[in-house]
Amino acid sequence: MENSINNSVCRIIVDAMGGDFAPQNAVLGAVQAVAEKRNMELFLAGKKEEILKTLAENNLSFKEENIIHCSEVIGMGDSPTAAIKGKADSSIVVGARFVRDGKADAFVSAGNTGAVMAAATLIIGRIPGVGRPTIGALIPNTSGISILFDVGASVDSKPQHLLEYAVMGTIFAREIYNIENPTVALLSVGEEESKGSDVVIQSHKLLKKTNLNFIGNVEGRDILSGGANIIICDGFIGNILLKFGESFVTFLKSRFLNYARKSFTNKLRVGIAKDSLKSILKEFDYQEYGGVPLLGINGITIIGHGSSTPKAIKNMVLRALEMHEKKLTEKIEISIKQYSNLQ
Amino acid sequence: MENSINNSVCRIIVDAMGGDFAPQNAVLGAVQAVAEKRNMELFLAGKKEEILKTLAENNLSFKEENIIHCSEVIGMGDSPTAAIKGKADSSIVVGARFVRDGKADAFVSAGNTGAVMAAATLIIGRIPGVGRPTIGALIPNTSGISILFDVGASVDSKPQHLLEYAVMGTIFAREIYNIENPTVALLSVGEEESKGSDVVIQSHKLLKKTNLNFIGNVEGRDILSGGANIIICDGFIGNILLKFGESFVTFLKSRFLNYARKSFTNKLRVGIAKDSLKSILKEFDYQEYGGVPLLGINGITIIGHGSSTPKAIKNMVLRALEMHEKKLTEKIEISIKQYSNLQ
Repeated sequence: MENSINNSVCRIIVDAMGGDFAPQNAVLGAVQAVAEKRNMELFLAGKKEEILKTLAENNLSFKEENIIHCSEVIGMGDSPTAAIKGKADSSIVVGARFVRDGKADAFVSAGNTGAVMAAATLIIGRIPGVGRPTIGALIPNTSGISILFDVGASVDSKPQHLLEYAVMGTIFAREIYNIENPTVALLSVGEEESKGSDVVIQSHKLLKKTNLNFIGNVEGRDILSGGANIIICDGFIGNILLKFGESFVTFLKSRFLNYARKSFTNKLRVGIAKDSLKSILKEFDYQEYGGVPLLGINGITIIGHGSSTPKAIKNMVLRALEMHEKKLTEKIEISIKQYSNLQ
Repeated sequence: MENSINNSVCRIIVDAMGGDFAPQNAVLGAVQAVAEKRNMELFLAGKKEEILKTLAENNLSFKEENIIHCSEVIGMGDSPTAAIKGKADSSIVVGARFVRDGKADAFVSAGNTGAVMAAATLIIGRIPGVGRPTIGALIPNTSGISILFDVGASVDSKPQHLLEYAVMGTIFAREIYNIENPTVALLSVGEEESKGSDVVIQSHKLLKKTNLNFIGNVEGRDILSGGANIIICDGFIGNILLKFGESFVTFLKSRFLNYARKSFTNKLRVGIAKDSLKSILKEFDYQEYGGVPLLGINGITIIGHGSSTPKAIKNMVLRALEMHEKKLTEKIEISIKQYSNLQ
């Protein structure tokens, strides 16, 4: 009876020690999520004493039996695979084991990205048929958003992997962003099928054989103009692009400040422009989206930015809940099977 | 006697039919360059009648014997290799042949980029020891500029090619930008030597063995923060990054306009902010730099943006002159020899 009740709601374990402001932001975000949604069971993994202290300091309460004490912490700078092996009682390893053992449906962490990916892949494991999991990033564009896969889960992807990213991305965009028949494009250096790296040219041929809504290649300039709902690339490129884009926002801010320093008139101008600039650059703010899913793992895994705020953590939890309710993992498994022998 | 006079000055041939506003902008830019510098001999390659008409309409004069008539034109959309083979009397083919035959020291074109690259590589040929030529792009950063190599001359570069880009880029930055000992970095997904694609990991090992000022890997976020003077990547990534960066500027402008449309107060705000925004985004304006060199070709080759203005064309000619005077080609040949057997 106890068991059936537990299984009817979504069980999510949050890494309380993950991120630059742990446990503070993770704990606050988790409590906010619980306050907002009743149809889930939340767990906090981490140093119990520190979690309780954070709760007390903020006059908050959290079910004590749902605090899963872990004696170790994987730092943001730790080497991922070594940390997973060496720190068996860390919140990241324990969180992943909770999902593997069926005690939770989803794992949410703003901790060491590499370690979370390694734990998810090695401990929870991949969905049958998936060669490589993938991380997607939301990019604002002139007509809404695009999602870029992969942004750093793996490098030197083979055509079969890029195909998998496209399949998983399609399901994600359809289920979570309600895009009925999401367009899928390959990121390349020209629109022609013959343009691009060897891997991209081979991937193009593969994608044409699927029943995905594949619209061909797009170029770097098409990312922000909304060339496709889903844009597929190797994780090496996606990671560089994402970090470059984020730094563009920082760069612009610093340039506006420099400009303001030059004269009093400039200062006034920038002062007046500030609100418009803020409102525009807000679109690039990851907090609104609250973390990114690691698709292809046999259990929902959401990875957040190291500097995640409580709001970002809360949004990550709500995203995990939605992915569970919409049976993302099961749908990916069914869809990926279709293409397992495509060549 | 005639010959020795011709050889003492730099001879540059400009593609009059290249670019979206040909022959207008190319002709105007060439005339402006001649007016500014006396120590060069300029040629215009293209349809003589159209060139003369443009000169007449603008009340300009240009030495008629230096107008090299070409009956054909390679369009911006033509397939590069096919066009080079099929249009033997086009301005791009004739310009490249002028350099190959020793009648000019440099070729400048704002025409079909792929066709200019193909003509330069196939007709002029590579500098002995260079496996692949490379195109660099200037990127503004918080402390000045960085130069990104390669931005699209070739994809699927091998470690030896990335090494060549680093060698050529170092000479370019030193000679043209007067950076004494330019820092060189590899673009990757992490600073650690072990991070990145296979090719990047192998390239890192090669670069460490050179006497270049190699500072290791930089990430996408380090491009605009001035992580290195020269940033090396495969042309597939460089091209996507460059086009993404350019589109970011366009995207921001459109967002500011959208914001302004929302209310009268917003409109006022953006109106006041306009000058600051313009001044900041101007740094990303390619016209100031006037085209990019194709390094590794056995003769100076400068490629411009299709939408090059007369000012951009003029700057391309002056850049070609400077590269000739500083003996870039000869210096690259000497330097590249040093590393030809590095493994």
